[in-house]
Amino acid sequence: MRTLDWLLGTPIATSEAEKQRIGPLAGIPILGLDAFSSAAYGPEAALTLLLPLGVTGLLYVGPIMALIALILLIVYFSYRQTIAAYPLGGGSYSVARENLGPKAALLAGAALALDYILNVAVGISAGVGALVSAVPSLLPHTLKLCLAILALLTLINLRGVKESGLAFMLPTYLFVATLGGIIVIGFAKTVLADGHPAPVEPPPALPIGTEAVGAWILLRAFASGCTAMTGVEAVSNGVPLFKNPPTVNAQRTLGMIVAILVALLAGIAGLSRAYGVVATPPGETGYQSVLSMLTGAVVGRGSFYYLTMAAVVAVLALSANTSFADFPRLCRVLAEDRYLPGAFVRRGRRLVFSNGIILLAACAAALLIAFGGITDRLIPLFAIGAFLAFTLSQAGMVAHWRRTPSPHARRSMIINAVGATSTGITLLIVAVSKFADGAWITVVVVPLMVIAFSRVNRHYRRIAGQLETIEPLAVPLPRSPIIVVPANSWNKMMKHALDFALRLSSEIYVVQIKTERDSIEDLSDNWELLIGAPAKERGVPEPRLVVLESDVRRFYIPFVDFVFALELSNPDRDIVVVIPELVMTHWWAALLHNNRGMLMRTLLRMQCGPRVFIVDAPYRLHK
Amino acid sequence: MRTLDWLLGTPIATSEAEKQRIGPLAGIPILGLDAFSSAAYGPEAALTLLLPLGVTGLLYVGPIMALIALILLIVYFSYRQTIAAYPLGGGSYSVARENLGPKAALLAGAALALDYILNVAVGISAGVGALVSAVPSLLPHTLKLCLAILALLTLINLRGVKESGLAFMLPTYLFVATLGGIIVIGFAKTVLADGHPAPVEPPPALPIGTEAVGAWILLRAFASGCTAMTGVEAVSNGVPLFKNPPTVNAQRTLGMIVAILVALLAGIAGLSRAYGVVATPPGETGYQSVLSMLTGAVVGRGSFYYLTMAAVVAVLALSANTSFADFPRLCRVLAEDRYLPGAFVRRGRRLVFSNGIILLAACAAALLIAFGGITDRLIPLFAIGAFLAFTLSQAGMVAHWRRTPSPHARRSMIINAVGATSTGITLLIVAVSKFADGAWITVVVVPLMVIAFSRVNRHYRRIAGQLETIEPLAVPLPRSPIIVVPANSWNKMMKHALDFALRLSSEIYVVQIKTERDSIEDLSDNWELLIGAPAKERGVPEPRLVVLESDVRRFYIPFVDFVFALELSNPDRDIVVVIPELVMTHWWAALLHNNRGMLMRTLLRMQCGPRVFIVDAPYRLHK
Repeated sequence: MRTLDWLLGTPIATSEAEKQRIGPLAGIPILGLDAFSSAAYGPEAALTLLLPLGVTGLLYVGPIMALIALILLIVYFSYRQTIAAYPLGGGSYSVARENLGPKAALLAGAALALDYILNVAVGISAGVGALVSAVPSLLPHTLKLCLAILALLTLINLRGVKESGLAFMLPTYLFVATLGGIIVIGFAKTVLADGHPAPVEPPPALPIGTEAVGAWILLRAFASGCTAMTGVEAVSNGVPLFKNPPTVNAQRTLGMIVAILVALLAGIAGLSRAYGVVATPPGETGYQSVLSMLTGAVVGRGSFYYLTMAAVVAVLALSANTSFADFPRLCRVLAEDRYLPGAFVRRGRRLVFSNGIILLAACAAALLIAFGGITDRLIPLFAIGAFLAFTLSQAGMVAHWRRTPSPHARRSMIINAVGATSTGITLLIVAVSKFADGAWITVVVVPLMVIAFSRVNRHYRRIAGQLETIEPLAVPLPRSPIIVVPANSWNKMMKHALDFALRLSSEIYVVQIKTERDSIEDLSDNWELLIGAPAKERGVPEPRLVVLESDVRRFYIPFVDFVFALELSNPDRDIVVVIPELVMTHWWAALLHNNRGMLMRTLLRMQCGPRVFIVDAPYRLHK
Repeated sequence: MRTLDWLLGTPIATSEAEKQRIGPLAGIPILGLDAFSSAAYGPEAALTLLLPLGVTGLLYVGPIMALIALILLIVYFSYRQTIAAYPLGGGSYSVARENLGPKAALLAGAALALDYILNVAVGISAGVGALVSAVPSLLPHTLKLCLAILALLTLINLRGVKESGLAFMLPTYLFVATLGGIIVIGFAKTVLADGHPAPVEPPPALPIGTEAVGAWILLRAFASGCTAMTGVEAVSNGVPLFKNPPTVNAQRTLGMIVAILVALLAGIAGLSRAYGVVATPPGETGYQSVLSMLTGAVVGRGSFYYLTMAAVVAVLALSANTSFADFPRLCRVLAEDRYLPGAFVRRGRRLVFSNGIILLAACAAALLIAFGGITDRLIPLFAIGAFLAFTLSQAGMVAHWRRTPSPHARRSMIINAVGATSTGITLLIVAVSKFADGAWITVVVVPLMVIAFSRVNRHYRRIAGQLETIEPLAVPLPRSPIIVVPANSWNKMMKHALDFALRLSSEIYVVQIKTERDSIEDLSDNWELLIGAPAKERGVPEPRLVVLESDVRRFYIPFVDFVFALELSNPDRDIVVVIPELVMTHWWAALLHNNRGMLMRTLLRMQCGPRVFIVDAPYRLHK
């Protein structure tokens, strides 16, 4: 327990939940990291697809990023309303469930859950990828580094929300400040140089166009750039995290996140144009990220460059953390509706939903191991889930306003309808243009998850149906049970169990199974001396000794058969099987003893009927 | 169960054990594979160390191999006597235990156990290494191939001794036949060409000597060559495997194995000299194994070459199997003396010691994974264990004969003393000359294993001491227990448990723990209706409802505290905790329910005293 306290912090009482709440200053790093980190790959993804256009491509970065920023603003106004309408956490799942029914809700839930898992794996591996390209000697340790960061994030999150907010504040604000600084300096230089600033560190020469501008290439560039929008839904899920008044604090946080993100996207797009920075082909020698080239062009490769790059690496790696804040909450609502096991509803020692955190870490670890820590190819899978959730959530809000008789309802409905339409169209564009690149995986996995959720739910409903009763107790007459004690040889443990049996009942069977000859001492030799005579002396009915032989060296099967037969031939009696068991003082000691008790219990449960009860008779050793 | 039957075969009765016994023809592959495979690496290991001597090195191969063959013959005569004296299996452990005491025995046991594990890992990886150098496209799959072969071997061995003998007969005899053929043809050609045969496929040019002949280099070459002797002890361990008369069959098998091995070693050494084949530096480009060069020189690279190489690969990979035959038997004797858990004593469904097989496979898999499937560097660790076991076993035999009043005792003692001395000297040479190459690991690991065995033994003796009693039963007076039932809400499962409790006792506590508010329905609301009224009606004492609140959302701790307090305040009563549990019809369904019962049982056992008994009240769902 000490180790756990040290690792995870001492338990926090439920009544202290209020103190764990956060304001916008902590909310921005906790819920905004994911969104900010997309500024590091969104514009780059769009620029990479524009590469075949050569210099001409630069002309289209601006309009594409402007369109993305516009959708981002629409989504912002849409989600502001969701936050106001669902102060208890208006995740896409909850909104869809309430307004569009359980099927749409499960679709949104599955899409988000997949997205959160992908985000953890991709974020960590992108961060490690950036680190490794800076320090190539770390390359062989890619996977280990990924898993170490994952373990660290898991631990921090298990310690609780507030502590994790503090841990992420520094890198997040450093990222915003350094990148913001680069953008401000870059624009100042551009203005001073009449739109043609001289780069300090010149970027690679502009490539020569190999393709003509076409709708398909622009569409694909737009779809790739849309990854810049992932992570924005996080705030609406996390409203209950905020201090009072949570709605206002959440809206304020969302507003600041979107404003910063739009500024970063616009700045990156504008500077790319001004400094003539285009993407370099990923995975080829000479590859450099757009942010690295931009920073080099604006301020040169001095210490400020390295500070900025460090912030980028940190934010990419830590962007996974947004998933850690939201995924467990999503699991909780799914579990409350019985689409997931109840364990996800309970909060852990530090008031966080520990089981959700652990599940997320396990899934992400599996992905990282399966892909050896290099998950770039999972990026196309990403945006689909996010946009599916956006669309369902806003469509749900439209339905919500239609039923609400408020005076603003009509205006609000229009805002959400515009949001739903624009994200819906974007979803279609992304799904079609990225289908072959891996988006099809999402199209396969999400429905499978929906099916799994439904199956789980059916299972719980079936069981609840079978267990349900309003019938009061039918008080039975007292009647002592028939007792069966499995025995090896005579010892204190066995004696303890038999003592208990004799206090409980006068009808006792001691069953000895002989498997290989001579392997255990035959109880019948000393039976009279040890048990028979003392019982007669006291005038108590003597326990009966049953010796069974097993040819194929199986201990349990003849024993279970015996108990089953006893149950059948005594239809009006309880059968109590008393299993003597050693209590070990050390965990490793348990490995040295075969856990006969556990196996026997499992087999008895599987094979026997409802009147067979199994008793653990623990015998404790002294140290 | 069906799947198990198909994979592992149907269970075999103990009475059929006799039919599973083998003769020399099956014994040679089962117990000799390990010995034969060493012919593939022993001479090569010696030749590699002679490389710096250039052509001169070839002059020393003959004498070195002759010395090794001589020791092999001494060991043979020594072990013949061991087999005769210990027909129940005269492994080094048993012989040392009986004659030199438990400490020497544990040393021999640990050395052998380590050796067997290393043999599995090294054998499989050597086989896969040979295969991969023939088919380079398989190189990236080295580890997977190793693990697949390990899994296959494990499965075959779990199916039983006899079947595994059949599976290994073909490759073993193919190896002996093809290699024997090469040797015969090679010598014929040598004789016909007056000692200077023309190679069909010329081996690489002889290297130029870079060092002068010295004692140290010859000693190291001898020590490396000694790996050719590993695996010879296997037969003495496996005497009970043989058909009647086991002693004669085992001696005959050992004789044939040693004869074949000596012939192979002599043939390889002689042909190397005749054809001028020396080793090529391992791990460098142009590397070729000595057997491959020899075969090429004698018969050229035709189909016979490939058949021979295939047999070499198969025998190397399958040599691991000897360990599978012997390691479980070693574990068994260690477990019978309580140095290992009792599970190693019992035979599995197919009359083999399944647990030993599984432990061996697990250790070897761990080694293979840790070394990525390339375990060449473990070879130096090898010979130490084998020679330590040889020496202890024969020293034990010397002590044995000293106490035996037989007329041949003196002569037998001399034979074993010669054996013990020569293997002891070899052990020293190997340990000293290979110390820096990795033999120090054996020197560290073997004592650690001995300590672990002793600890396990002390644990068992301590427990046996505490459990031991010859006191007869002190028959107690019947007295009904106090019953505690943990409750969530009213349902059929709960009703079933309460029914049972009421039949057993009139003093019942129903304990409800409230953790987070509203998460479970309060039983007190309906208590009177469901339980109170029916009990009063029947005139039975009413069960008492206890509602406990837990602030830090822990269900178990307040419950266990309650039971513990109850036990303390009722020093003359049994406390029976009845835990209602759902019986799942599918294994996956168990994952969907929190196993509260198991956790509660563990905590109750750890915290409460000997009068707390725990009852499983299983409630079965219908499909």
